[in-house]
Amino acid sequence: MATLEDIGVSASINILSAFAFLLAFALLRIQPINDRVYFPKWYICGGRASPRRSANFVGKLVNLNFWTYLTFLNWMPQALRMSEAEIIQHAGLDSAVFLRIYTLGLKIFLPVTVLALLILVPVNVSSGTLFFLRKELVVSDIDKLSISNVRPESTRFFFHIGMEYLFTMWICYMLYKEYHNVALMRLHFLASQHRRVEQFTVVVRNVPHVSGHSISDTVDHFFQTNHPNHYIDHQAVYNANKYSKLVRKRERVRNWLDYNKLKFERHPDRRPTTKIGFLGICGKRVDSIEYYEQQIKEIDKRIALERQRILKDPKSIMPVAFVSFNSRWGAAVCAQTQQSRNPTLWLTNWAPEPRDVYWQNLAIPFVSLSIRKLIVSLTVFALVFFYMIPIAFVQSLANLEGLERVAPFLRAVIELKFIKSFLQGFLPGLALKIFLYILPTVMMILSKIEGYIALSTLERRSSAKYYYFMLVNVFLGSIVTGTAFEQLHSFLHQSPTQIPRTIGVSIPMKATFFITYIMVDGWAGIASEILRLKPLVIFHLKNMFLVKTERDREHAMNPGSVDFPETIPSLQLYFLLGIVYAVVTPILLPFILVFFAFAYFIYRHQVINVYNQQYESGAAFWPHVHSRIIASLLISQLLLMGLLSTKKAANSTPLLIALPILTLTFHKYCKNRFEPAFRKYPLEEAMAKDTMERTTEPNLNIKAYLADAYLHPIFQSFEEEELVEVRVDKNQTHIPSPSESVVSSPSPPHYAYHYEVQPPPHYVHHYHEAEP
Amino acid sequence: MATLEDIGVSASINILSAFAFLLAFALLRIQPINDRVYFPKWYICGGRASPRRSANFVGKLVNLNFWTYLTFLNWMPQALRMSEAEIIQHAGLDSAVFLRIYTLGLKIFLPVTVLALLILVPVNVSSGTLFFLRKELVVSDIDKLSISNVRPESTRFFFHIGMEYLFTMWICYMLYKEYHNVALMRLHFLASQHRRVEQFTVVVRNVPHVSGHSISDTVDHFFQTNHPNHYIDHQAVYNANKYSKLVRKRERVRNWLDYNKLKFERHPDRRPTTKIGFLGICGKRVDSIEYYEQQIKEIDKRIALERQRILKDPKSIMPVAFVSFNSRWGAAVCAQTQQSRNPTLWLTNWAPEPRDVYWQNLAIPFVSLSIRKLIVSLTVFALVFFYMIPIAFVQSLANLEGLERVAPFLRAVIELKFIKSFLQGFLPGLALKIFLYILPTVMMILSKIEGYIALSTLERRSSAKYYYFMLVNVFLGSIVTGTAFEQLHSFLHQSPTQIPRTIGVSIPMKATFFITYIMVDGWAGIASEILRLKPLVIFHLKNMFLVKTERDREHAMNPGSVDFPETIPSLQLYFLLGIVYAVVTPILLPFILVFFAFAYFIYRHQVINVYNQQYESGAAFWPHVHSRIIASLLISQLLLMGLLSTKKAANSTPLLIALPILTLTFHKYCKNRFEPAFRKYPLEEAMAKDTMERTTEPNLNIKAYLADAYLHPIFQSFEEEELVEVRVDKNQTHIPSPSESVVSSPSPPHYAYHYEVQPPPHYVHHYHEAEP
Repeated sequence: MATLEDIGVSASINILSAFAFLLAFALLRIQPINDRVYFPKWYICGGRASPRRSANFVGKLVNLNFWTYLTFLNWMPQALRMSEAEIIQHAGLDSAVFLRIYTLGLKIFLPVTVLALLILVPVNVSSGTLFFLRKELVVSDIDKLSISNVRPESTRFFFHIGMEYLFTMWICYMLYKEYHNVALMRLHFLASQHRRVEQFTVVVRNVPHVSGHSISDTVDHFFQTNHPNHYIDHQAVYNANKYSKLVRKRERVRNWLDYNKLKFERHPDRRPTTKIGFLGICGKRVDSIEYYEQQIKEIDKRIALERQRILKDPKSIMPVAFVSFNSRWGAAVCAQTQQSRNPTLWLTNWAPEPRDVYWQNLAIPFVSLSIRKLIVSLTVFALVFFYMIPIAFVQSLANLEGLERVAPFLRAVIELKFIKSFLQGFLPGLALKIFLYILPTVMMILSKIEGYIALSTLERRSSAKYYYFMLVNVFLGSIVTGTAFEQLHSFLHQSPTQIPRTIGVSIPMKATFFITYIMVDGWAGIASEILRLKPLVIFHLKNMFLVKTERDREHAMNPGSVDFPETIPSLQLYFLLGIVYAVVTPILLPFILVFFAFAYFIYRHQVINVYNQQYESGAAFWPHVHSRIIASLLISQLLLMGLLSTKKAANSTPLLIALPILTLTFHKYCKNRFEPAFRKYPLEEAMAKDTMERTTEPNLNIKAYLADAYLHPIFQSFEEEELVEVRVDKNQTHIPSPSESVVSSPSPPHYAYHYEVQPPPHYVHHYHEAEP
Repeated sequence: MATLEDIGVSASINILSAFAFLLAFALLRIQPINDRVYFPKWYICGGRASPRRSANFVGKLVNLNFWTYLTFLNWMPQALRMSEAEIIQHAGLDSAVFLRIYTLGLKIFLPVTVLALLILVPVNVSSGTLFFLRKELVVSDIDKLSISNVRPESTRFFFHIGMEYLFTMWICYMLYKEYHNVALMRLHFLASQHRRVEQFTVVVRNVPHVSGHSISDTVDHFFQTNHPNHYIDHQAVYNANKYSKLVRKRERVRNWLDYNKLKFERHPDRRPTTKIGFLGICGKRVDSIEYYEQQIKEIDKRIALERQRILKDPKSIMPVAFVSFNSRWGAAVCAQTQQSRNPTLWLTNWAPEPRDVYWQNLAIPFVSLSIRKLIVSLTVFALVFFYMIPIAFVQSLANLEGLERVAPFLRAVIELKFIKSFLQGFLPGLALKIFLYILPTVMMILSKIEGYIALSTLERRSSAKYYYFMLVNVFLGSIVTGTAFEQLHSFLHQSPTQIPRTIGVSIPMKATFFITYIMVDGWAGIASEILRLKPLVIFHLKNMFLVKTERDREHAMNPGSVDFPETIPSLQLYFLLGIVYAVVTPILLPFILVFFAFAYFIYRHQVINVYNQQYESGAAFWPHVHSRIIASLLISQLLLMGLLSTKKAANSTPLLIALPILTLTFHKYCKNRFEPAFRKYPLEEAMAKDTMERTTEPNLNIKAYLADAYLHPIFQSFEEEELVEVRVDKNQTHIPSPSESVVSSPSPPHYAYHYEVQPPPHYVHHYHEAEP
């Protein structure tokens, strides 16, 4: 048990490190050379073409204006200057609503903190049970402020119960208001958007195979029959996974070629050579530039062949199609209705926007989807509850005796003192760290296996999985000792009413742990986010070895985007901590408040200056945020019941039973009231937009507009690419790249596959504004 | 514990009583005077207008053809003669699919019984543990055939586990096949039906109130805007609950008038008189016929006034409307899509067929629905788990000491020996019986409070509630001793893994109880169903006192319909018993088989000759039947796991863990695959029917066809009624009655409100074919 002093020390360490990060950021961001790392969003949206203040050569790299060093914290007021409407305009609704989660946190916890500190802390302190028990128990100062300090059977528990009711009502009220606002914002956003292809397009999966007819014919016939007044056309989807592999390989080879060319330019006296064997270590030595140019030519040939094969082979057409309609109304109708007698055929759904499509999963047959879902849920369950097993295995390797027995020849090495202490002291922690580091990736892979076809859905699904992990392993795992698996075992062998007691009773004792957690993860962790250390290093490495043109520099920039799968679950953990401890140990609340305020500043800055969202889902994640805060409320109510029942507060505990029922009813009401706004597209809205468009643009050729919107990447012919490349950059032949602007252009292959984060096509036309 | 002999005695008693019922039925049914009780369906569908063989006066009442007495059991082969297609034609899809539940039971349990008896019984018998334990335990002969006889830790449990796998697979296979068949039958039934109004109609609830506009204007405007090519018209719904009360009162008075007129006809010498005070006991004596005629006139006046008020007052128009479309496609689209930005407004759904509408609930506002649902679920929960409390209260009244203390003046009465034994011996049982008797009605009232707007939905919902009651109180309540509330309490304080053990271990011991239950409830109970004792008595009473015309006789007939809310849950209980005991005590299975076969015969006879369904839902109850058999499978698997874990079969029990997961996956698959066929109307189907109709009947005036389909009863003007009545029956003025045939006719008020079971309008035109 930590004393208040311990917490003070920990707080100062964390505040100092957070401050150090901020200072480093403030110094690095005003150097012109880092401009593309800290302000990429402005380059992408065209607001900035080159670092400001580029006077002379040195001035290009280092900031020589010393005045700016004095005002190095001015990014904070700057971050607040943009209004919400401007943020929506600038970064999209997803980012704006993401920031609202932080303000929601502030709005919820500010009054809760004030009330809890003013009312509950005096109630707890004046009870003073723990003073009498001091000799028997190790009691921390924190505990004196918590509910533990209240005598069992005390009538003071009515205060806590009353507060729980008050807090629940306040939180529900705020949640309702926020859901209402976000739903309105979403509808407004969708309504005010300019014409977008996804409003007219429906993705249809599991097209049945009719013998003697191609998939395209079947789709055409079906929709011409069943949506005769609305159907226009459709675009087939090809299984181009092999093709995309070749494209990626070409890009890799291209990078090597660039690197060698640059090397040759810098040292024109020596032509770079390379070995063609395994990893360039062995084999014949050849001229690098020639070798890679040769390789690219070969790959190009194979790419062309593969595309021919795909286009000719009817088997490469997947039973999936993007079907377009002549009105939003027609598309809305098709997306929301059941098409076929057999409900597993002709599954229609809203098409994700073109940048959001995850093409690879379009090829998954429907029958395998339910099996995939089953397997993935079992895997996630195992991952959540048995995650300690692989780590324990790695850690047992670090057990030196074991290692020596397995590999006796290592004995001499292991016995070295330095190695020994490294293995024993560092490796187990490292194993855990690595596991936690790759966890979001693992969750994302699992979501991909589940077969969702939009990136936004994939991110929401992995976010959900990560949340379960956090809930079980961070929250429950910290409260109840033992691994998650042991907890599961003990929970299965306890009565359902015993579980909240077991957890509830240890909650107040873990307050100090969570305060430290908030400071380390929430304060210092968030501060390190703004520094962008990894993108900074990678940008400068790439700049040194690969960048030749302004476009390459653009590529090296990698602005990233809000990492929904990781940030939203951890945010929800803070909500959970705040809500659970609001009544139990109110002193934890100010720490949460600081987190929300600080993180709000930082993410606002990042959203404005750095992140570039890959897709726009229109705040489709909000129902998840809402329902998990509701879940936190339920958890807090159950745990409070458990805690109070151990306090023998038999008079007051039954008063709490109504709370979960009311909370659930509230949740159900909100779900009915608002969730359809996030899942469906009301016909009223569709018809209104259609009518308006018909009057303002009576001559619009909607068919031409939609013609190539969801064109599969491989339809973009190779010759066209070549042409485009020559137009963009005459000095070199580059990989196929984004060419024309916005939607009417074919999506470029390497980005449509989403193998890595890259700027969307309509930003590409700024490439010509190169630096001198 | 019952021995095999006890079971034999019980079986013979039940078989004898079942046989007595059958014999009584066989004798009564061939009497012409009972013809309308045992063959009402034939009268209704026009196959029969008067009893067969009506030679002379006596022959009209009693069957004098002695040959028929010898072949009195020939109804059984007769019941089988009709093919399924004919049954669908004759009685509708609901009845045909209801019969399929019984054949499904036979198909599932016939192979299961054979396998279980051939393999498991020898395995159990030859184990012979219980012979050694005979002295310690009271062991019945039945137990020697059950799993209890197998030694703990025996490897023989692998047989049981293997069988559980085999049975699960077989049951799932049969369920899949049956779901497939039923879904096809439903689609075929819907497709082959003639044009029906509900195919073109959507019910829209929660129409918003726009100030300055009437509800009708709002509806017209909204659908003309958002479904411009498909919307035709709508019909408003009026709050006519007061009106319907008056109509019911008129009918009551009418009956008294008829009774008195008949009395006067039989004794023309004496005019009947009546007292006008409380219940006809006190007050002034008046001439009955005049008095009631006067009363009817008054009520008619009030009815006319009330109708005027309703039609004029805009407040009596409910925010609900039946919206009709010019094509099935248009209606399907409107029913399946979200209309408005605010998802709680403009809620569209398929309209139930006109006979199926439960008008009263159309007036319930949407906001109260979720509160109603919450309250009803809490009530059902209380009813299921605390149902013993009111009964215990009544039973405590029968506690004589208590009663004497409450009412000392009763002492003299109570001390009489006869009264005493009645109170002590009979009253407690009677209280329970009455409670169980009114339970389905209570469940139906609760479902009505929940606010469903179709009779078919109401019946399905009360069926679900009744199932929970049966599951907890009959199944669990018989296995675990104590009241359901005590069980709930102990379950809440046990670990989740302990519950299947507690129940599992007592399952084999209760086999004899359930065998007796099957014989009493399943064998003798079903046999009493065919006798129709209550309708028989009521028919003859009405015949004696009220019936004047052939039409009154028609009314007195009351064919009833399949009582879904009661039969389906009890059927599902038999499935549960069969599946649970298949592995544990296979000797129970033959009793279940006999039940299914016998009940199949009886219900087939009833469906063909007696029942007249009030509505046709197209087998909409099947998904419930399916999912509850799946639930039975899961229960049986969990209980077997619990049972085996007490048998220390640690090697084999884990093998069972995969079963529930596979069963759930199967269920999910079936749900995806088939359930939409029961909930939605695919556009493909709608378009195909529309196109076909357009070619076959190009001149169809769909607007005229739909004009009055969902006309609210009060729109039918009083003058029209009078006219119609004169046409139908010149000798009397009767209550407003069904007038024209099928759907284009306005629904008559007294049946559209569904206050009692009455023949649907299109059968009414057979009234003229009266007996001489």
